Amino acid sequence: MTIDYMQTIEDHESIVRSYVRSFPTVFEKAKGSYLYDGDGKAYLDFFAGASVMNYGHNHPELQKALIEYLQNDGVVHTLDMATKARAEFLDTYHRLILEPRGMEYRVQFPGPTGTNAVETALKIARKVTGREDVISFTNAFHGMTLGSLAVTGNEFKRKGAGIPLTHGQTMPYCGYFGPCENCGGPERNCVDYLDRMLKDGGSGVDHPAAIILEPIQGEGGLNSACLEWMRQVEALCRKYDMLLIVDDIQAGNGRTGPYFSFEEAGIKPDVITVSKSISGFGMPLAITLVKPEHDIWEPGEHNGTFRGFNPAMITAKKALELYWSDDKFEKDTLRKGELVRDGLQKILDKHPETPGSLRGRGMFRGIAFEHHELAEKISEHAFERQLIIETSGPRDEVLKLLPPLVTSDEDLKKGLDIIEESLVAAAKELGIR
Amino acid sequence: MTIDYMQTIEDHESIVRSYVRSFPTVFEKAKGSYLYDGDGKAYLDFFAGASVMNYGHNHPELQKALIEYLQNDGVVHTLDMATKARAEFLDTYHRLILEPRGMEYRVQFPGPTGTNAVETALKIARKVTGREDVISFTNAFHGMTLGSLAVTGNEFKRKGAGIPLTHGQTMPYCGYFGPCENCGGPERNCVDYLDRMLKDGGSGVDHPAAIILEPIQGEGGLNSACLEWMRQVEALCRKYDMLLIVDDIQAGNGRTGPYFSFEEAGIKPDVITVSKSISGFGMPLAITLVKPEHDIWEPGEHNGTFRGFNPAMITAKKALELYWSDDKFEKDTLRKGELVRDGLQKILDKHPETPGSLRGRGMFRGIAFEHHELAEKISEHAFERQLIIETSGPRDEVLKLLPPLVTSDEDLKKGLDIIEESLVAAAKELGIR
Amino acid sequence: MTIDYMQTIEDHESIVRSYVRSFPTVFEKAKGSYLYDGDGKAYLDFFAGASVMNYGHNHPELQKALIEYLQNDGVVHTLDMATKARAEFLDTYHRLILEPRGMEYRVQFPGPTGTNAVETALKIARKVTGREDVISFTNAFHGMTLGSLAVTGNEFKRKGAGIPLTHGQTMPYCGYFGPCENCGGPERNCVDYLDRMLKDGGSGVDHPAAIILEPIQGEGGLNSACLEWMRQVEALCRKYDMLLIVDDIQAGNGRTGPYFSFEEAGIKPDVITVSKSISGFGMPLAITLVKPEHDIWEPGEHNGTFRGFNPAMITAKKALELYWSDDKFEKDTLRKGELVRDGLQKILDKHPETPGSLRGRGMFRGIAFEHHELAEKISEHAFERQLIIETSGPRDEVLKLLPPLVTSDEDLKKGLDIIEESLVAAAKELGIR
Amino acid sequence: MTIDYMQTIEDHESIVRSYVRSFPTVFEKAKGSYLYDGDGKAYLDFFAGASVMNYGHNHPELQKALIEYLQNDGVVHTLDMATKARAEFLDTYHRLILEPRGMEYRVQFPGPTGTNAVETALKIARKVTGREDVISFTNAFHGMTLGSLAVTGNEFKRKGAGIPLTHGQTMPYCGYFGPCENCGGPERNCVDYLDRMLKDGGSGVDHPAAIILEPIQGEGGLNSACLEWMRQVEALCRKYDMLLIVDDIQAGNGRTGPYFSFEEAGIKPDVITVSKSISGFGMPLAITLVKPEHDIWEPGEHNGTFRGFNPAMITAKKALELYWSDDKFEKDTLRKGELVRDGLQKILDKHPETPGSLRGRGMFRGIAFEHHELAEKISEHAFERQLIIETSGPRDEVLKLLPPLVTSDEDLKKGLDIIEESLVAAAKELGIR
Repeated sequence: MTIDYMQTIEDHESIVRSYVRSFPTVFEKAKGSYLYDGDGKAYLDFFAGASVMNYGHNHPELQKALIEYLQNDGVVHTLDMATKARAEFLDTYHRLILEPRGMEYRVQFPGPTGTNAVETALKIARKVTGREDVISFTNAFHGMTLGSLAVTGNEFKRKGAGIPLTHGQTMPYCGYFGPCENCGGPERNCVDYLDRMLKDGGSGVDHPAAIILEPIQGEGGLNSACLEWMRQVEALCRKYDMLLIVDDIQAGNGRTGPYFSFEEAGIKPDVITVSKSISGFGMPLAITLVKPEHDIWEPGEHNGTFRGFNPAMITAKKALELYWSDDKFEKDTLRKGELVRDGLQKILDKHPETPGSLRGRGMFRGIAFEHHELAEKISEHAFERQLIIETSGPRDEVLKLLPPLVTSDEDLKKGLDIIEESLVAAAKELGIR
Repeated sequence: MTIDYMQTIEDHESIVRSYVRSFPTVFEKAKGSYLYDGDGKAYLDFFAGASVMNYGHNHPELQKALIEYLQNDGVVHTLDMATKARAEFLDTYHRLILEPRGMEYRVQFPGPTGTNAVETALKIARKVTGREDVISFTNAFHGMTLGSLAVTGNEFKRKGAGIPLTHGQTMPYCGYFGPCENCGGPERNCVDYLDRMLKDGGSGVDHPAAIILEPIQGEGGLNSACLEWMRQVEALCRKYDMLLIVDDIQAGNGRTGPYFSFEEAGIKPDVITVSKSISGFGMPLAITLVKPEHDIWEPGEHNGTFRGFNPAMITAKKALELYWSDDKFEKDTLRKGELVRDGLQKILDKHPETPGSLRGRGMFRGIAFEHHELAEKISEHAFERQLIIETSGPRDEVLKLLPPLVTSDEDLKKGLDIIEESLVAAAKELGIR
Repeated sequence: MTIDYMQTIEDHESIVRSYVRSFPTVFEKAKGSYLYDGDGKAYLDFFAGASVMNYGHNHPELQKALIEYLQNDGVVHTLDMATKARAEFLDTYHRLILEPRGMEYRVQFPGPTGTNAVETALKIARKVTGREDVISFTNAFHGMTLGSLAVTGNEFKRKGAGIPLTHGQTMPYCGYFGPCENCGGPERNCVDYLDRMLKDGGSGVDHPAAIILEPIQGEGGLNSACLEWMRQVEALCRKYDMLLIVDDIQAGNGRTGPYFSFEEAGIKPDVITVSKSISGFGMPLAITLVKPEHDIWEPGEHNGTFRGFNPAMITAKKALELYWSDDKFEKDTLRKGELVRDGLQKILDKHPETPGSLRGRGMFRGIAFEHHELAEKISEHAFERQLIIETSGPRDEVLKLLPPLVTSDEDLKKGLDIIEESLVAAAKELGIR
Repeated sequence: MTIDYMQTIEDHESIVRSYVRSFPTVFEKAKGSYLYDGDGKAYLDFFAGASVMNYGHNHPELQKALIEYLQNDGVVHTLDMATKARAEFLDTYHRLILEPRGMEYRVQFPGPTGTNAVETALKIARKVTGREDVISFTNAFHGMTLGSLAVTGNEFKRKGAGIPLTHGQTMPYCGYFGPCENCGGPERNCVDYLDRMLKDGGSGVDHPAAIILEPIQGEGGLNSACLEWMRQVEALCRKYDMLLIVDDIQAGNGRTGPYFSFEEAGIKPDVITVSKSISGFGMPLAITLVKPEHDIWEPGEHNGTFRGFNPAMITAKKALELYWSDDKFEKDTLRKGELVRDGLQKILDKHPETPGSLRGRGMFRGIAFEHHELAEKISEHAFERQLIIETSGPRDEVLKLLPPLVTSDEDLKKGLDIIEESLVAAAKELGIR
């Protein structure tokens, strides 16, 4: 029996679906930086499943390791029982990621989604401190379950909760009012505001359990915190005895160059959340890294059925071995990031009629356009040209580039060319000149 | 390099881990109803990953379909973009599950874990009704993220939130005070209490958005609601204009015989959550079924990165085709359930020194022991005899049998024999005679 | 300049006003059990300002003491600075009320309204226990500020909050499902339900800080708890280490005979709230009685501008001396209460066409009519006959008698006669026969 | 029987008492600007019961009106039934206060305390808008019941709640980071921050129901908002469809010169709370002024026993007639305010060793000392010199002058002299030179 795939989805899937509306094609296969529809038509993927496919689709060596594991009847699901796959992943993560960076953390498997990791991070911060409130930042995005949503800035997503979201305190992110002295700008140091509110017994800000931050706000508009800001926020956490939680779900796993997106700042978060590209293969997996002194859970105090999805640990281990045994991958990502940055800058320079500013770091880049409708329109035109590219920001005003990190220079350039063409077409359609 | 797997886990994984403490062995392979350690030692699995492995571990045909998909570079991860795998799963679910049962629902992919499905169910109920409170029942378990935890009964797990859990109202589950007229018992009809609290403008119970219930409370102690209770609760939902949410995550997918555990009651929930065995292969997947008239989401109002894990849809579709094209599987499960029930009853009859009562339905059975420590001790002794079996209930007083539904009669009997031996050993150790 | 008083009120006062709608007359004077309008028309007052005027309006000796105090330039307002009036009130309350009853409590002045007293009671219970939830009962009324409202049952009043009310847990009041063994009825002991929910770690009821109860629910429908119920609830408080708060705002100050309405039960609440008739003269005053071991406030941790309204303490002291130096007043109230009870019973007996049941204790009595509209209609007809009488209950189905305790037997009989006449008229109007 | 008054208070009153600790004397009488102890020793009162006694203690004409009312058996307490006293107060308030200022408001009697008025203001704002959050400012103080406390800044008082305070959002008050362009300072316009947070759909600030502000923060440290700030905040309320609530409880009733402390700014709040000196005589009374279009209460949706304390309306009316029939009183207050300001400035100029800055407006003035301990120490020394004066601010660093507005110039100067002497003594004791 053959069915009309798209019609089937429209008939039977909830109207909550979203990306299918931006990219209305039925995909069947994927390899490297490309997605393919049923006719074999290739789409260059500058979205990478929201940074889940940093190592590309169906990476041959990960694929091979996974298939071998399955063919050998390797355990698939065991909750948190011990398995060889789990132990080897833990060992590898420790050896290749944590130890070389002088990081001492325990790994918690909170359930295989980013929001699960954030929920555990919030829980442990509250347990450690005995306090309730958590400070998050303007335009933060941490997930869609109620705990994570309460520290998320987006009004539309918050309203979806249907109940008041409490125990969060929102504060201005780095540069929210324009660049301050930390970034070489004229504004008052952004961190001062936070410091003053915490110091002052009359401010109405109750003593928080933690601060949660994203070094780069992927959903919030590719806002990138400066290193000094991160350091000063960490200093506040020490000064006021709060935990520092870094949500590195979208920006981690090498997206900005280094494995963690905050490495350059030299900060030592108390809790780190990692997910998206951690399995390397698109399989659901999330981990919460907790400093040993904060690892004060009771057994089973947080759990989740799929916290023991072993195939994801098989590919995760393989990906770590392939890309994080030395610093080649990091350097290459940084190099490609500059290639992308230069390409985007050139486009801006060449098209003064569509002013915008560069955003992001490493291979996590984009353009915030002054004409807010432009980004979405470019995305549409790019899709016609077989490039998948998304937008972000509170008004979807930022064109966001998230190509697989393994994308070739050639494909990066090809994508940049399509972006330029699409910008021209989009500007024309919108009557911008 | 060889590592000591168990030592690695103890060194690097958070102390929150729990099942590894009950079953302290490193597993490497799994097939059918058995798990195997590195030396090939076989453990009969009466836990099935908390009912995730209803079709057995590494089911050959699912395994084959999955490997083929991977070898052909099938799309692994696409958020909610359209794929052939997604469309075929939707079509199959509709054809084999919903349509034959006269059920009209849209399928939402809320993220691949049960708690994500519960969070969306609560969100949509609040959105549809514009109200906030949700009624849940004593000993309910719905998940560990904050929204789900607020409708969960367990004190220890609730405390883990670190903040007060609000907008839930707990009410007595079927038979909480002993069997009532609905179950042929002497107590006042359990539903009367709820009705009175809802009817009375002075009761202090604000008008709820929804009632959420589990037809069988897997974590709460294998409490099984009678059919009349479910019908009367549904009637209250209609009477007071509330949504009825059925959480069928643990009891669904055929665990009690029929695909849904509430089918026999003839109720029509507004929202149904399904996860655990839905992929059939132990892969993370969860769906929320919503009646079309309640499917009033805005696009993207709820989302989640891993809501498009295609390999899980491949095995899910295959499992549906294998087991749900006709009613053979359902009948066989019911037959095996009786075999288990009779076996457990015999054990109880033979050992009057360890009184207990049977719990559950279908292949979701257990014994609630009057000596509360007995169940855990039996589990320990069973593990020494290579049987994996878990406990549940607020005091872990219930021995819970969750064998794969495909377990052979022979293996079921073997497991029941081990249970009896373990009971004798446990009673002896505890000095019960 | 003369103004139309009623018109002025309609023009300038908020539409939130309520009693003026039931008793649409402009009052100017009051004495004893009577209110007078501008023409000197007398209204027998069976409402007593919601039990604020237990000693009658403008009691001559209280009036005299107050005027003397004012004429001598006695301090009127001093927040919580020390005054002779305050010290003498404290001494008198201790000597005449607390000491003779073997009660050891500290007096807190929380601000001069009942809801302020309830708010402090809740605060201190939370502070003492470090817990958040408070159990209250169906049809409870504790006040209109947010803390008190969260432990109030009435749906209409709760909705007025405009935000979800949290940290309360509602439980069935004595006899909510009909009389149980404690009251000699057939139903399951009401307290069992509460006990079970508290004992069970899976019930979803978090360990509460306190239970708050009214021995008689004035607003909730004159529901009167039996003594055994109060004792068993107190026992639960001890068993589960919760504070027992008794809200005696409406039922205290002798309304039921003894000074406190719970004396006969022999319970020892941890916190008691007293207001309404405490000043004896209708002046705003409220006190919170706290056992010394729970009096762990920091200075100023709760405050309120008008917590030092000295004239109210002058009349309060005088009232205590007049009525509580011996047990004559208590005995007389009990005797009058029986007179009222017998009168109401006779009315019911004589009019089987309007069935109802007696409610209340002491001089806090009423009839719950089976025809719900009857009570309000009787109140209307009574007002035409110059009797002021109110209703209560979730559907205003209870006719509530709250005459000043000093009302003469003659006036009590006169009022009862008017009630009968009004019942006849009301039944006729409603077509009941 | 004679008792030791102070000992009695220590024995029987809760340790929560506070002002008695700062001013440890037993007062018996009061007249004009003086309080007297039992030996007739006179204390000059620069506190005025926290601005309750703006017209002085036992004002002869108010006293006379009150005594007459009582002698004539005027109604004391009637909840919200109609009385002549109530109607005349409403008429007078309308004629002398609202009408001449072009203000159209309905008067709600929410219960006789400031916090009751604030609770109703919050309720009506939530009802009108259907939204939940309310924005308040750093160092705000609005009351001690849970609703009011949630919009109060003080950490110590907030903690007293014992539960998390929700649905408030704290924002920086005028000049919180130093004077901005509105006050002629160099800082970024304070209102910009608020505007940005409200405008930005990603800020994490949910759309609020209202903004609540004090034109001068009495408890928070005598911070005085500039007129332009008030205007811009009002403009934001219009821009974002929020209600503007002005809490004029401490600063109103002429304390700053005009009747309302915000008159000069020309703003039109949607809701205004008034209490403290409204009765003129120290009697509990509070009103909430609501614009007619927002007066959408259901009858009885908010209530409170003592919302009909008629004697307070008698003196309130008299005070309005005496002081607010023309603008003499306002002008005299402004003149005296300048006298106080000049006096304080002279003290600061003469004592450069104790630097401080002037705070406040009208007769609501004070000094914020750089040595934080100085203010409290001055208060102690002043009390020894028979001057009652309080401190405020998050660290009690502000010496706060609240003399009755009727205080003679001579007494004002006498008080200023004592302040200077006390400052010298305090500085000496603290070793400041």
